[in-house]
Amino acid sequence: MALGGVIDGVPAGFSVDFDQIQYELDRRKPGQSAIVTQRKEGDKVEFLSGIFEGKTTGTSIGFIIRNEQQRSQDYDRLKEVFRPSHADFTYSEKFGIRDPRGGGRTSARETVCRVVAGALAKQVLEQKGIEIDAFVDQVGSLRWSGEWNPSLREIRENNPVRVPNEEMALKMEEEIRAVRKDGDTIGGCVRCIVTGLPSGLGEPVFDKLHAELGKAMLSINAVKAFSIGSGFDGVSLRGSAHNDIFNADKTTKTNNSGGIQGGISNGMPVDFRVAFKPVATVMIDQETIDVDGNIVEFKGEGRHDPCVVPRAVPIVEAMAALVILDYYMIHESRRNF
Amino acid sequence: MALGGVIDGVPAGFSVDFDQIQYELDRRKPGQSAIVTQRKEGDKVEFLSGIFEGKTTGTSIGFIIRNEQQRSQDYDRLKEVFRPSHADFTYSEKFGIRDPRGGGRTSARETVCRVVAGALAKQVLEQKGIEIDAFVDQVGSLRWSGEWNPSLREIRENNPVRVPNEEMALKMEEEIRAVRKDGDTIGGCVRCIVTGLPSGLGEPVFDKLHAELGKAMLSINAVKAFSIGSGFDGVSLRGSAHNDIFNADKTTKTNNSGGIQGGISNGMPVDFRVAFKPVATVMIDQETIDVDGNIVEFKGEGRHDPCVVPRAVPIVEAMAALVILDYYMIHESRRNF
Amino acid sequence: MALGGVIDGVPAGFSVDFDQIQYELDRRKPGQSAIVTQRKEGDKVEFLSGIFEGKTTGTSIGFIIRNEQQRSQDYDRLKEVFRPSHADFTYSEKFGIRDPRGGGRTSARETVCRVVAGALAKQVLEQKGIEIDAFVDQVGSLRWSGEWNPSLREIRENNPVRVPNEEMALKMEEEIRAVRKDGDTIGGCVRCIVTGLPSGLGEPVFDKLHAELGKAMLSINAVKAFSIGSGFDGVSLRGSAHNDIFNADKTTKTNNSGGIQGGISNGMPVDFRVAFKPVATVMIDQETIDVDGNIVEFKGEGRHDPCVVPRAVPIVEAMAALVILDYYMIHESRRNF
Amino acid sequence: MALGGVIDGVPAGFSVDFDQIQYELDRRKPGQSAIVTQRKEGDKVEFLSGIFEGKTTGTSIGFIIRNEQQRSQDYDRLKEVFRPSHADFTYSEKFGIRDPRGGGRTSARETVCRVVAGALAKQVLEQKGIEIDAFVDQVGSLRWSGEWNPSLREIRENNPVRVPNEEMALKMEEEIRAVRKDGDTIGGCVRCIVTGLPSGLGEPVFDKLHAELGKAMLSINAVKAFSIGSGFDGVSLRGSAHNDIFNADKTTKTNNSGGIQGGISNGMPVDFRVAFKPVATVMIDQETIDVDGNIVEFKGEGRHDPCVVPRAVPIVEAMAALVILDYYMIHESRRNF
Repeated sequence: MALGGVIDGVPAGFSVDFDQIQYELDRRKPGQSAIVTQRKEGDKVEFLSGIFEGKTTGTSIGFIIRNEQQRSQDYDRLKEVFRPSHADFTYSEKFGIRDPRGGGRTSARETVCRVVAGALAKQVLEQKGIEIDAFVDQVGSLRWSGEWNPSLREIRENNPVRVPNEEMALKMEEEIRAVRKDGDTIGGCVRCIVTGLPSGLGEPVFDKLHAELGKAMLSINAVKAFSIGSGFDGVSLRGSAHNDIFNADKTTKTNNSGGIQGGISNGMPVDFRVAFKPVATVMIDQETIDVDGNIVEFKGEGRHDPCVVPRAVPIVEAMAALVILDYYMIHESRRNF
Repeated sequence: MALGGVIDGVPAGFSVDFDQIQYELDRRKPGQSAIVTQRKEGDKVEFLSGIFEGKTTGTSIGFIIRNEQQRSQDYDRLKEVFRPSHADFTYSEKFGIRDPRGGGRTSARETVCRVVAGALAKQVLEQKGIEIDAFVDQVGSLRWSGEWNPSLREIRENNPVRVPNEEMALKMEEEIRAVRKDGDTIGGCVRCIVTGLPSGLGEPVFDKLHAELGKAMLSINAVKAFSIGSGFDGVSLRGSAHNDIFNADKTTKTNNSGGIQGGISNGMPVDFRVAFKPVATVMIDQETIDVDGNIVEFKGEGRHDPCVVPRAVPIVEAMAALVILDYYMIHESRRNF
Repeated sequence: MALGGVIDGVPAGFSVDFDQIQYELDRRKPGQSAIVTQRKEGDKVEFLSGIFEGKTTGTSIGFIIRNEQQRSQDYDRLKEVFRPSHADFTYSEKFGIRDPRGGGRTSARETVCRVVAGALAKQVLEQKGIEIDAFVDQVGSLRWSGEWNPSLREIRENNPVRVPNEEMALKMEEEIRAVRKDGDTIGGCVRCIVTGLPSGLGEPVFDKLHAELGKAMLSINAVKAFSIGSGFDGVSLRGSAHNDIFNADKTTKTNNSGGIQGGISNGMPVDFRVAFKPVATVMIDQETIDVDGNIVEFKGEGRHDPCVVPRAVPIVEAMAALVILDYYMIHESRRNF
Repeated sequence: MALGGVIDGVPAGFSVDFDQIQYELDRRKPGQSAIVTQRKEGDKVEFLSGIFEGKTTGTSIGFIIRNEQQRSQDYDRLKEVFRPSHADFTYSEKFGIRDPRGGGRTSARETVCRVVAGALAKQVLEQKGIEIDAFVDQVGSLRWSGEWNPSLREIRENNPVRVPNEEMALKMEEEIRAVRKDGDTIGGCVRCIVTGLPSGLGEPVFDKLHAELGKAMLSINAVKAFSIGSGFDGVSLRGSAHNDIFNADKTTKTNNSGGIQGGISNGMPVDFRVAFKPVATVMIDQETIDVDGNIVEFKGEGRHDPCVVPRAVPIVEAMAALVILDYYMIHESRRNF
C-alpha cells in the first residue's frame, strides 16, 4: 500500500528544493509533539518522473510515498462496524465495497500527497514573491484574533499548536491535553494569509479565486466551513462600515474583502479561515451500528489526534499554493496579447 | 446587451415546466417588495435550442434574457471611478478594460442565468424525489435558529424577507427598512436544505460534494463564507458531542455532518449556510479613488438593494440544484456495472 | 430557432474586426456559387456580451445567429423516416426524441458558430504572425498535389471550388456539375497549412497538438479522416527516406512530420488534410426505413450541396485557429517561469 | 526511473483479472519475436491503490512499472544531438531542458501505461458484451483488405506481425526482415473493430465518438493519420454509392460509416484505421544537427524496432477501450431520467 500521485503543469527548468519538501512533510507528519498522534510515519517521497538532475522537465511529476509502518491488523475490527461521523458508511453506500486499511482514500493520510505537490507550488510561487502562511487561530472556544505578520513565523513554528502567540499557545496546548486526557477530541480553525499576490488573478462568474480556494479547503478531511475576509462576521455590518476604502496607492484601509473583489485579487493580502470539526475517533464508548444494522458499542483505540489543526497548517498552505499557482498560470496565458 | 448561456448535459425527453422557470425568475427579480431594489427588470427568458415541442432534446439548451430597461447613461459616471469594495478596480486591473454598463459580468444581474439553469435542474431532481429549499436565516445580527420543514414554505414565500417565521420576518423587515432609510445596506445569511437525496453522491478527495457546493455558493456575487452542518460552530464542540450517532435504520440522531460524510451524501438532509456581505453601493458619501488615483467622494444613486438576501434565496437553490444534478449523473454513470 | 454560443478565454483589449468575421461567414454560407446549395441564409451574427466599444473585455463573448429563412414545413416529412447515412437514426436512438427542424445539432448549419469563434481566433493569431490557410485539394478522384504558398490565395478565392489552381478548378467544377446533374453528391478533401507558428506548442502524451487538431477536424460534420504530414502515404516509406533532415538553422529539408514532432510544433508549417464524405442527401430514390422499421423509398428534395468541400474551407480554418490559439495560450501560461 | 499513472472513474466491485493485464503487457513488450526490438523489458505492473482483495474499490487506481533494465549510459550520446524526426528538438524547444533517458515522456515506452489502463477497461467492457480487436492490415505497401471476424483471432496472435492472414503474415514478415537487414525501418497500419457496442454512444458537436477515438489514436507515438469507415477512400465515391442502406432490423447493408453517424454509434461495428510512420531511429548514417546547430552524422545503435505495428496492436486496443468506456459511462449518466 502506498500513496502517490501525478503533478501536471509545473513549469520546466525549475530547481527543486527537496529539503523544503521534506520539511513540509515533517510539519504534517504524526508524532511531532506531545499533543498530536504518536503514530510513526516515515513520509519519504520518491519522485519517479518529471525531474532530471534536480530540475523539473515540464512533463508530469510522478511520486509515491510508501507506508512503512502499516499495520493492517489494526483495521480488522473496523471492517464490521460503521464508526459514527466517519466515511465508513458513505463509502460503503457509494461503492458497495470498502478498503478498511489505513492510507486509503478515506484516511486523512492522503493529505500527504497534497503537501508534496503544494510544497513544489510554494517554491515556484516564492520565486514570484508570493508567500503563503497559515496558522492556527482557534482551538475549541479559544481564539487568537491578532494580526499576522511574517515576523511571527518563528513563534508559530516553535510551539506545538502552531498559533503565532506564545501565551495563546500555552492555553491551547493545555486545552488539547485536557481533551486528550478525557479520550476526547476538539475542533479548531486555521487562518491563511497570502502576500505578494499581484492584482488580477481570478476568473469571472463560476471560477472566482475565493470560490476555488473554498473548494480546495473544503476538500481537506474534516473541514466544515470556509470564509474569506469578513466572512460570517461581515453579515452583521452595514455596507458603509464594511466597505474597504481605497488609499491613493490603490491599497485599501481595511481588508474586509480578504484581498479579493468580484472573484479577482486586488493586491491586498488574501486572507481566509478554515474550520475543522473535532476528529470523530474518540477513546470513549459510543453507540453505533455494524454493517448489518445492529447497534453496537465502539471505542477508538491506538494513536489518534486529539486536535488535528496543528498538523493541518501545512495542508492548508499546500492547497492554497496549488490554487494560487493555477490561477497565476491561467492569468499568464492571456497577459501577452 | 443581453444575458444568456448554454446548459449542457440535461437528459433528453424531459417535459419543461416553463411557468416554474418564470416563477423562479420572479422570485429573484428586483421590485418584488418594498424592501428590495425598485429597479424593473422583465427577466423573460427565450430558449433558442435544445427544447422541441416542450421537451428537452438532449442537446445544448441555449437561452437569452434581454435587458429591456437598460439605461446605459446611469453608468456613465461609473466609468471614471473605482467604487469601494466593488469589482470595478479588479476588473480594470485584470483586463485593462471595463464595461461599465449593467448586465455585465460584474453585475449581480448575471445570476438570472443561474436561476434559469437551476430551475430546470430543480425540475429534473423533483422527479427523483429530491427537493431543495433555501431561506433567509439571518439579516444583520438577527438570526432565526429554528428547524426547517416543508410546511414552512408558505410562510417563507409570504413574507418579503423569505424567512420561515412570521415574527422574525417582521423584525428583519423592520431592520432592513431602517438600514434603507439611512441610505445604507446590511448583510445576511441564507440556509439551504436538500431532502430526498440518496446516499452515495460525491467523489473522493478533491471533488467532495460539499466542496463543490461550497465553490458554487462562493461563486455567487457578495458571498463571503460557506459552512456545512455544524460549520464554524462545530469547532468548539468535543468529538464525543459532535459525532452523529446512528439509528438502526442508518439515519443519524443529529446532523452535525450536514448530510455529508467524507464528501459523500449519507442520506440525511444536506444542510448548509451561505454568508452575504452588505451590498457595497450605499447612498452615503464615501471616499474613494478615480481611475487616475485621485481621491474623490462617491455616493450611490438609483435603485440598489438595502439587503440582498431575500432575492438570493432562489439563486442559492439554483446553484445547489446544478451541483446536485451533476453529482447525481456522475453517480449514475457507474451504478450499473 | 437560432444558433449561437459562448466564446471563453479570449484575451482582453483586442480590437475586433467585425467585417472579417462577416467575410468568413460569407465564405461558408450557402448560395455563394452555382456549385453549392442555393439555400439562402443571412448568417448575421449578433454579439451579446464580452465586446465593448469594439474591444474584447476579457469576459465571455456570447453571440447568436438568427435563422431568418427557416421553413419548418420542409422538415415535416423527415419526421417519420430515417434517412440513410444521416444522424436521424442515431439521434433517435440516443435521445429517444428528435428535432427534425434545420439549424439543430445534427445539421451542418451548426458550423456557422465555429466560423464566428474561429474568425475571432484567426484575428488574434494574425497579431502573433500566425496564418492559417485551408484549400480544397481533392474532389472525388481529382487531386491537386501542388505546394501551397500565400500567393495562391487569390486564385483560391476566385474560383468556386477553392482549389489554388485554375486548371484544376475548372476540372473540379465540371465534376461537381456532372454529379449535381445526376442528383448525386461527391466527397473531397481540404488541406490546411499553418505558418508562422513558433516551435514548442503542444502537450506531452494525450494532448499532442496534432491529436487535438485531429479531434477538432473529425468533429466537423461529414469528416471521415485526418492526416498530418505524410499521413497514410508515409507508411510505405522507409525511415531513412521519411526522416526530415535538419538544416543548420533548425528548419528541415522535408516536412513529412507536418510541422509536429512528438506532439509539439517544430517551427515548420503545420500541414494536415481532412476527408469529407459525399453528402448523404441525394436527389435519387433510395431505400430506407421509417421510424417503425418499414422499408420505404426516400429521395432528397430542395437545396442540398452536391459537394461540401468548397464551403468547408473556412470551417477547417476556424477549427484550426481555435486549437492553435488554445495551445498558444497554454504555452504562454508556463513561459515566464 | 519508472512509469505509472492514476486510473480514475473505474466502477467499484469489479474483479480484476491480473493475468489478462499481464497478457496485454506481454503483447506490447519488446523481444517477443525476431521482427521486433530485442530489448528486454520486464513490464511488471504494481498496483498501489484502488484495488482491495482483487476488486476495484471505486477510488483511484495508482500503479507503477519499474524499468528494471534501464541503461542510462545508452543515452549519454543522445544528449548532444537532435535526432532527425525525433522529439529531441521539440522537447528542447518547448521546455529548454530534456531528459535523454529512456522511459521518459518522449519514449514510446510510455505506452505501457496505456496498455495497463486499457486492459482494465477492456475487462469492464467485456462484461457488457463489447469486444475490441485490432490487427495489422498494412506493412509498407503490403495491405491485407480482408474482412475481420473473431475466428481470425487465433491466426492474428500466432504470427509475429499480428495480421489475421497466414499468407500475408509471411510476406509482411519477409518485408520487415529485409528492412531490418538494411538497418532501416518501415511504417504500417493498424485496423480496429469494436463489436457489441450499443447504439447511442457519442456526444453532439465537439465530442463526437469518432473525434475522441481519433484524438486517442493520434496521441499514440508515431501515429500520423486516422480514418473511420470509408475514410480517405470514401471521398471519391458518390453519395448514392456511399450511403449505408438500412435493413429492416436497423442494421445497414454496408458500413462506410464505420459504425458512427453524426458522432453517435449506430449499433454496427465501429471500424477505424491508424497509420504509423516508420520509426525514426535507423541504423544508417544520417545527417543531423547537434544542440549547437552544427551538422553532424548520426546512426542509431542498439535495439530498435524495424516496424512498430505488431507491438502497436494492444496499444490501439487499449486506447479504444478507454474512449469507449468513457462514452459508455457518459451515456449511462443520463439514461435513467
